[in-house]
Amino acid sequence: MAARRSYLDHNASAPLSDVARAAMVGALAIDANPSSVHSQGREARRVVEAARRDVAALVGADPANVVFTSGATEGASWLLMPNWRMGRAPLHVSRLIVCAADHPATLNGGHFAPEALTRIGVDADGILRMDELASELERHDRAAGQIMVAIHLANNETGVVQPVAQIAAFVRAAGGILVLDAVQAAGRIPLDISDGCADFLILSSHKIGGPKGAGAVVSAGGVLMPEPLIRGGGQEHGHRAGTENVAAIAGFGAAAREAMALLPEMEQVAALRDRFEAEILAHVPDAVIFGRAARRLPNTTFFAIPGLKAETAQIAFDLDGVALSAGSACSSGKVGPSHVLAAMGQGAYGGALRVSIGRATTEEDLVLFAQALRKLVARRAVKAA
Amino acid sequence: MAARRSYLDHNASAPLSDVARAAMVGALAIDANPSSVHSQGREARRVVEAARRDVAALVGADPANVVFTSGATEGASWLLMPNWRMGRAPLHVSRLIVCAADHPATLNGGHFAPEALTRIGVDADGILRMDELASELERHDRAAGQIMVAIHLANNETGVVQPVAQIAAFVRAAGGILVLDAVQAAGRIPLDISDGCADFLILSSHKIGGPKGAGAVVSAGGVLMPEPLIRGGGQEHGHRAGTENVAAIAGFGAAAREAMALLPEMEQVAALRDRFEAEILAHVPDAVIFGRAARRLPNTTFFAIPGLKAETAQIAFDLDGVALSAGSACSSGKVGPSHVLAAMGQGAYGGALRVSIGRATTEEDLVLFAQALRKLVARRAVKAA
Repeated sequence: MAARRSYLDHNASAPLSDVARAAMVGALAIDANPSSVHSQGREARRVVEAARRDVAALVGADPANVVFTSGATEGASWLLMPNWRMGRAPLHVSRLIVCAADHPATLNGGHFAPEALTRIGVDADGILRMDELASELERHDRAAGQIMVAIHLANNETGVVQPVAQIAAFVRAAGGILVLDAVQAAGRIPLDISDGCADFLILSSHKIGGPKGAGAVVSAGGVLMPEPLIRGGGQEHGHRAGTENVAAIAGFGAAAREAMALLPEMEQVAALRDRFEAEILAHVPDAVIFGRAARRLPNTTFFAIPGLKAETAQIAFDLDGVALSAGSACSSGKVGPSHVLAAMGQGAYGGALRVSIGRATTEEDLVLFAQALRKLVARRAVKAA
Repeated sequence: MAARRSYLDHNASAPLSDVARAAMVGALAIDANPSSVHSQGREARRVVEAARRDVAALVGADPANVVFTSGATEGASWLLMPNWRMGRAPLHVSRLIVCAADHPATLNGGHFAPEALTRIGVDADGILRMDELASELERHDRAAGQIMVAIHLANNETGVVQPVAQIAAFVRAAGGILVLDAVQAAGRIPLDISDGCADFLILSSHKIGGPKGAGAVVSAGGVLMPEPLIRGGGQEHGHRAGTENVAAIAGFGAAAREAMALLPEMEQVAALRDRFEAEILAHVPDAVIFGRAARRLPNTTFFAIPGLKAETAQIAFDLDGVALSAGSACSSGKVGPSHVLAAMGQGAYGGALRVSIGRATTEEDLVLFAQALRKLVARRAVKAA
């Protein structure tokens, strides 16, 4: 195994940034529960509320509309439920529309019954089929209840960015609720909930340089809310009970502040990503880079090497000190064909490799990747001969 | 405000132990997602699985039956739902019995409808009324579904320990499911799920010296399980989706290992707690210490000073550098009469003060507490004069 390792799997979990680590270590020194009224408790409370302002600022939201969760999957499981409230009045959501290329946390419909769930396809570039969305919205029986659409803003495997302004216009016209899984998009592309792009955003700390164990649900309004999923004390204005994870929330806040300040650096990340793609195409002229014709995140490349199994290639890269993924890392040890590629009609490739980078990725990472890729291609040539 | 502060609020959140902090800082250096198959991912996975063994050992469980959650409230919200499975077969829980002195996470019935929830009282010492439990179990219509009992093993406010062997015998005879909220008991008194005390234990990391943001649901068997509350990827054997909070879980494991090793030191903690009580009774001869006739945790004292409002006293202690609580810290800034005292028929006291200590509490903490108490009592005397 190589002495220097290259970590190219930021979409699975981005490295903890130094400012987030410092914020966490600082917060770990506070013993108290933020619900305690003594001075240590109030200190913990201040840390949580400062982080709330930072997370709100990253997505143009009112801090009062940020609810901290334990992560994005909790956020999705909470929002994707039939029982909502408009203020104090109950509101029933009778249909959920998701995208066939969504993350499993939304793809599987959360707490909706299978018969209340509709999946909409994507085109060969991974873009939601707007005609299907329009006809499903049209077909919905409003007398049965509200309709909700949950879709990823940027795909975790391909990095393809959905045309959310257009989607939001469709959903709004139909009187529906739009939930955007912004996990991979936040901190990588500009995101402003005040522009009407969504009614709810789902965020994850550990995809933007914060620690694992924190996430947020951000609402545009705050009046329309789901019934609480986690119930007990009155934390998070009654929306999410349980002692706040003060240290992880502090780290999340610090990461959000940094991500916002350094968003312009994503241009350099995109330039570096393009050089990864140039290496891929130089060594593997028949490589296929998925979603390349669409707008993509600046940090993600999802590619297939014809004739080479992705899992085999992933192991070879790992042995050469390069951590990348074959598909997403959304479930323990699960290796199987990508449902995202299948949805794009690219199922024949079976699998693909994902390189996902960030601000911390360097020239040296590119060199290590290119070396490992050359070795892999040489082996493929020997096998084919 | 005093330069040296005394933190006597361990039942709200125990101070992070040094070994837990070290384990967390170590785990924060691992960038990867534990579901990733590359070497960094496998390193994260090893950390999670080692912690699972440590948490299992603390309560005599099989590590395979430990499901990590974001905390105890999530654990309670997950277990307290009507939809369960026995292996692959669905199983409906039609009635939930809780204790009137339970923590709000169980007291409010989780995801059960109000009409499916029964609350059972406690006696003046805070002990569950066994006759009520027996008659409610007797009255249950098995044809409607399974019955479940959820009760705290040790009370968060009084420290009173329930007679769980007896409760378990009653519930088992009725064919019910017994969930024990062991949040305050774990690490403070011996606890062994293999002795038949419960079907499920709910644990919290930050009450045993670990960080906030981790908890566990521990089952005795593993075949009977609730439907997942947080749904998405296949983490935690499909029982709880979402990227594992590796650092918090590492800290939880380290704290569990330490708590188990140092359990005998709880005798010294009990001796110190007795000295706190001696100080209280020396300065306030008419003070009432709740649950004193019952078996209690070694670290908790819940007392009232007649004629003095608990909130006022709590603020005075805080200004003198002593952090303790007026009731529990289960919801943000909420100050009100204790439902635990009300359930014990002690509602007339209105409120009470909780001193909750731990292994880190010293002689110096006792001195600070006694000084603050003397000042408070002197003020009360002046007022009364």
